[in-house]
Amino acid sequence: MKVGGRQYRTIWVAEDGESVEIIDQTKLPHAFVVARLSTLDDVAGAIESMLVRGAPLIGVAAAYGVCLALRRDPSDAAMADACQRLSATRPTAVNLRAALTALSDRLGPLAPSDRVAGAYAIAAELAEADAACNRSIGEHGLTLLRAIVGVVRGTRRLEVMTHCNAGWLATVDFGTALAPVYAAHDSGIPVHVWVSETRPRNQGASLTAWELAQHGIPYTAIVDSAAGHVMQRGDVDVVLVGTDRTTATGAVANKIGTYMKALAARDCAIPFYVAAPSSSIDWTLQDGRDIPIEERPATEVTHLTGLSASGRPETVQLFPDGTVAKNFGFDVTPAKFVTGLITERGVCQASREGLLGLFPERDWRLKTAGATR
Amino acid sequence: MKVGGRQYRTIWVAEDGESVEIIDQTKLPHAFVVARLSTLDDVAGAIESMLVRGAPLIGVAAAYGVCLALRRDPSDAAMADACQRLSATRPTAVNLRAALTALSDRLGPLAPSDRVAGAYAIAAELAEADAACNRSIGEHGLTLLRAIVGVVRGTRRLEVMTHCNAGWLATVDFGTALAPVYAAHDSGIPVHVWVSETRPRNQGASLTAWELAQHGIPYTAIVDSAAGHVMQRGDVDVVLVGTDRTTATGAVANKIGTYMKALAARDCAIPFYVAAPSSSIDWTLQDGRDIPIEERPATEVTHLTGLSASGRPETVQLFPDGTVAKNFGFDVTPAKFVTGLITERGVCQASREGLLGLFPERDWRLKTAGATR
Repeated sequence: MKVGGRQYRTIWVAEDGESVEIIDQTKLPHAFVVARLSTLDDVAGAIESMLVRGAPLIGVAAAYGVCLALRRDPSDAAMADACQRLSATRPTAVNLRAALTALSDRLGPLAPSDRVAGAYAIAAELAEADAACNRSIGEHGLTLLRAIVGVVRGTRRLEVMTHCNAGWLATVDFGTALAPVYAAHDSGIPVHVWVSETRPRNQGASLTAWELAQHGIPYTAIVDSAAGHVMQRGDVDVVLVGTDRTTATGAVANKIGTYMKALAARDCAIPFYVAAPSSSIDWTLQDGRDIPIEERPATEVTHLTGLSASGRPETVQLFPDGTVAKNFGFDVTPAKFVTGLITERGVCQASREGLLGLFPERDWRLKTAGATR
Repeated sequence: MKVGGRQYRTIWVAEDGESVEIIDQTKLPHAFVVARLSTLDDVAGAIESMLVRGAPLIGVAAAYGVCLALRRDPSDAAMADACQRLSATRPTAVNLRAALTALSDRLGPLAPSDRVAGAYAIAAELAEADAACNRSIGEHGLTLLRAIVGVVRGTRRLEVMTHCNAGWLATVDFGTALAPVYAAHDSGIPVHVWVSETRPRNQGASLTAWELAQHGIPYTAIVDSAAGHVMQRGDVDVVLVGTDRTTATGAVANKIGTYMKALAARDCAIPFYVAAPSSSIDWTLQDGRDIPIEERPATEVTHLTGLSASGRPETVQLFPDGTVAKNFGFDVTPAKFVTGLITERGVCQASREGLLGLFPERDWRLKTAGATR
């Protein structure tokens, strides 16, 4: 996507051919800063501190973290340590572990001396695969949006509501939930997005609003609590969100607050779609309640950082001294509230049957049948 | 209620016997400041800028605003002007208009020279009536909480979730939704409250957290978006909220975000009660969609004020420059999602029948029958 007219992805190998550069997402929307990561610790720290975030992007970032670790020491032990360190950074997103498993599986058989080159190649592959996947999600989502445009009165713009940031900043490029929005805008459909701030870290306010503005898509800011009322007013045609982990039965763990948006969409008879790249699907999980929910520091709830009048980032305290806070990063939306999943292979019902229809190779019954044949 | 060991109400006549003093709620939780209001404009400004807020409290504050206006000019015209000015400050709460109507009706027949004394007497009556009403709500709510304690396992504390601030700071004393919580705590029931910050103005963070702490009731802070997840986890036994306007059929307009909390409570089979003093009931309204919803400045969404590290209030910007925002102050929860209304006369179903059972004098069919007899 373009920033100030120049083409960017969210992560790339630096000019030295070794380090990795990222857009520091903690500085947006008030400053556009590229950060250079040169060590495993740099990458792990960037994921933990959310300089990079978004399930698809942290998978790719972690892969580059392994590359940087292997430059120092390509041994089995060092590779295992690196994977363990990176895997512990964020517990909910499954992409992270999927990327690390793919790397370990493919690098393990290589001689240590071949691993660095192999790792960079795989990381680049994962990055390309993510961009391609999201482009496909955009196309399948566009078909869906065209159908919705067909039923809303043609005289007004299409009204989309999203949550958090599942845009290109959450991925290598294009975004997941916002990919269909960009595709619609680019194909001439007038589209407007309701952007909720997404406390506690305000990714809606600082990232979604910023990237939509960069692309020229109109949006309106609301507080998270206003989502239900906006839906009740009839001002939303479709809700599009991302997912950090999708169960094999179609439940989705996504940014805290997604569940209540899904409930409001259901009550207001508004379609609620989840952009779910297959990399987000945890085929081992049947029950959404088994998804581990990350708990983050209490200070993210009791305090908030923004831009002061003097133009500097300033953290302000909201609750009284001594306040105890709980900071759940994600919630789980049961499959029954999800109208459909938009994957890179098409749109399906949020159910085991729906997912296996698009990903038949994941059907263990077929595998077992094949094995006994 | 007590602040630092000293008994306070939220509004009282100053020592000069004329001016009115209030707790400046925009300074909480970081500073406890008493503000003096000496003119109609002072009072109207204090309501508009939310130095005083909460449906019951702004009704009483408006009554004192009329007192101060009449000191300058007790004519019919001045009284009408004062009522009009005060009525325009906040559109959603019905208490404001009810208080002003009561004053006008009772002061109109008096000679202008008697109106000042009459107005202060009526304002004091309204204040006493509010405190008495809330004490009753506390008692009826306590009965309800005792029943809920009976069904939750007796080994743990009672888990209450609220929204915004419907505590003693929202009223003259005792609070509405929090009155049963204080009554439970004072009667020895171990109780814990989930306090959501309540963006955009953070009355949960700055007011509810503060007043619970003053009273020694444990609470845990969460962002608004986390309410559904906390309910899904089974960590909430009952949701208790206030109302700024209740229709004759039991729908409630309350702080933005209440509707989604009600949806989550329904999905999680958690009782959802609304503390509804009869002063909040608009007997002329049948449909919640007809309640006027206040829209407040966009900057309350795009910016946020808290305490800076240097100990000064600081306003920080959250969204990018040029962001368009909508700031709906309230939403409407349909009666079907309300388990019951807690009024000063007891608990009833959120329905016309439920309300008329407690307030039979409001049944126009009885009135009509009487008139034709």
